[in-house]
Amino acid sequence: MRVGPPGRERPAVADADGVVYDLSSLTADIDGSFLGGGGVATVAQALADGTLPRWDVTGMRIGAPVAQPGKVICVGPNYRKPPPFEPPAEPALFLKAPDTVVGAYDQVLIPRGGTAVDWEIELAVVIGATARYLDSPADAQAAIAGYAISHDVSERVFQHDRGGTLDKGKCCETFNPLGPWLVPPVDLGDPSDLRLRLWVDGETRQDASTRDMIFDPAHLVWYASQFMVLRPGDILNTGTPPGCAIGRPGRPYLRAGQIVELEVAGLGRQRQVIGTA
Amino acid sequence: MRVGPPGRERPAVADADGVVYDLSSLTADIDGSFLGGGGVATVAQALADGTLPRWDVTGMRIGAPVAQPGKVICVGPNYRKPPPFEPPAEPALFLKAPDTVVGAYDQVLIPRGGTAVDWEIELAVVIGATARYLDSPADAQAAIAGYAISHDVSERVFQHDRGGTLDKGKCCETFNPLGPWLVPPVDLGDPSDLRLRLWVDGETRQDASTRDMIFDPAHLVWYASQFMVLRPGDILNTGTPPGCAIGRPGRPYLRAGQIVELEVAGLGRQRQVIGTA
Repeated sequence: MRVGPPGRERPAVADADGVVYDLSSLTADIDGSFLGGGGVATVAQALADGTLPRWDVTGMRIGAPVAQPGKVICVGPNYRKPPPFEPPAEPALFLKAPDTVVGAYDQVLIPRGGTAVDWEIELAVVIGATARYLDSPADAQAAIAGYAISHDVSERVFQHDRGGTLDKGKCCETFNPLGPWLVPPVDLGDPSDLRLRLWVDGETRQDASTRDMIFDPAHLVWYASQFMVLRPGDILNTGTPPGCAIGRPGRPYLRAGQIVELEVAGLGRQRQVIGTA
Repeated sequence: MRVGPPGRERPAVADADGVVYDLSSLTADIDGSFLGGGGVATVAQALADGTLPRWDVTGMRIGAPVAQPGKVICVGPNYRKPPPFEPPAEPALFLKAPDTVVGAYDQVLIPRGGTAVDWEIELAVVIGATARYLDSPADAQAAIAGYAISHDVSERVFQHDRGGTLDKGKCCETFNPLGPWLVPPVDLGDPSDLRLRLWVDGETRQDASTRDMIFDPAHLVWYASQFMVLRPGDILNTGTPPGCAIGRPGRPYLRAGQIVELEVAGLGRQRQVIGTA
C-alpha cells in the first residue's frame, strides 16, 4: 500500500493481522520499476525476516497502491447475464487515462456538465512483468504482480452521446479509485470466485462473483498482450458485473454527497464521497 | 530534442542553424516535470546567453522529444473533405497507450497477425501546463509547450473488426513515432497553415495543410480539458488529413521493408522502416 498525502505517499505493507510496516528502507515508492524488479518478493522476504519497522498509519490517507501507472486497460462486457445477452466472442478493450487513478477513499468528482455519473466495481490486475505476445493464458500468471479493487467510474452521457469513442466518459478527473491494497496472487489465492459488492448510501447496487466472468484475468492479460505491450505497473480492469445505474429503472446516477462503498473478498474495501469538480 | 539509445536519451536543443547543444546541465531529461516548470523558457534563455556546450550528434539516434508522456489523446476526423462527408459537431477523442511513443527514425513494427497497418500523419500538440476546464480556446495557448510531427500508426482490422473500441488497432508497439523535435510556438509561428506531407517508398500519400482542420489545436486543447485533466508532457494528436491506405483503391497497407517519410513545415522530417514484431 501507499500512505500519505497525494503525490507524497510512502510505501508500506500490511501483514495478515493488519499490522502496517514502513517500506521506505526497501524502495522510494511502489511503481512499475519496483514491481518489475521483483519488489513483491522482496517485501515478502522482509516481512518474513521481521526486519521492517512498524508504522502507525491511523488516520492517514491511503493512496493508490501503484504510483503512476503507465496505462490503464479496461475490458468491456465481461460478466454473464441472462439472454438476450450474448457473450462477446473476444474481449472488448479500451483505455482510461492513467492519471484518473486515485486512492480508495478519495473523493470522486462529478465533472462539470456531468449528469450521468455511474459506478462500476471491478477486479483490477496489476502487471508485474513485461508481457508481449504471450503464448497462452497460462503464461500470464507470471506477469501478474497482484490484484486490487478498481472503481471504473463512468459518465454515461459523455460516454455514449458526445461523439466518437467512450473515452470522454471514462477519463474524467478522479474516475479510477484503486486499492486500498495490492494483494499478491499468493496471498489472495484463486481469483476465480471472489464476491464483489458495491453500495450507494448503504443500499446494495452490485453483488456478484468473479466466477461469472466470461474471460478470466489470465485470459485477459494474454489477450491484451497480443495488441499492446503490458509493462510493470500497468493496470487491467476486468469489467463490471450487472447493477450499474444505467441498467436500473429511472437510472439513479450519482449525486454530490452520496457515498459509494465497494468490497471485493480478500481485497479490502473502498469508500468514496461524491463531490463536484 | 532527446538524443541517445532508447531509454538512455539525453536532452539537447538545436538552434535555428541546426547547431546542437547539450542540455544536461539544465535538466536530466525533457519530461512533463521539466516542461511544466518553465523548461522551454529556460532553454531559450540559455541559448540566448550562449552558455550551452555544443554537442556533435552526427549519427546518433534521436528519441521522442518528450520522455514518458502521461497520456496520448487523439482526435478522430478533423480535416474537411468534400461531401458527402459531414464535419462532426464536436471532436471525437480517444487514447493511445503512451508507451507507443518512439523516435522519429525508429522502426515501426507490423504487429503479429496484423494485415492492415496504415499511416496517419498528424500535427501533435505537447502540453506544457496543467489544463482543467479551460474557459475558452484562447486560454489554451498558455498550456501549449510546443508542436511536433506525430505518426498515428493504425492497424485497421484490429481497429474496426475485433470488437469494442478502436484501441486495439492504435496501441501496438512502436505505433506513435514523435518528433524529431518539439518546436515551441514562438519558433513555429502560426500553426494554422502548415503543409503536412507523407510518402511511402517515395510516393506521396498525404499532402494537406492544417488550414483544412475542422477544430484547431487551441480548440482541441480547450475541448479535451472539459473531459479530462491535461498535464505537462501529455500529447494531443490533432487528426490526420485524407490519403490513408484505408481510403485508397486496393487499400495498399504497409508491408515489411517499406519506408514511410513524414514532413510538417517547420517541424522537420520523420523516416521509418517498416518491420515485423
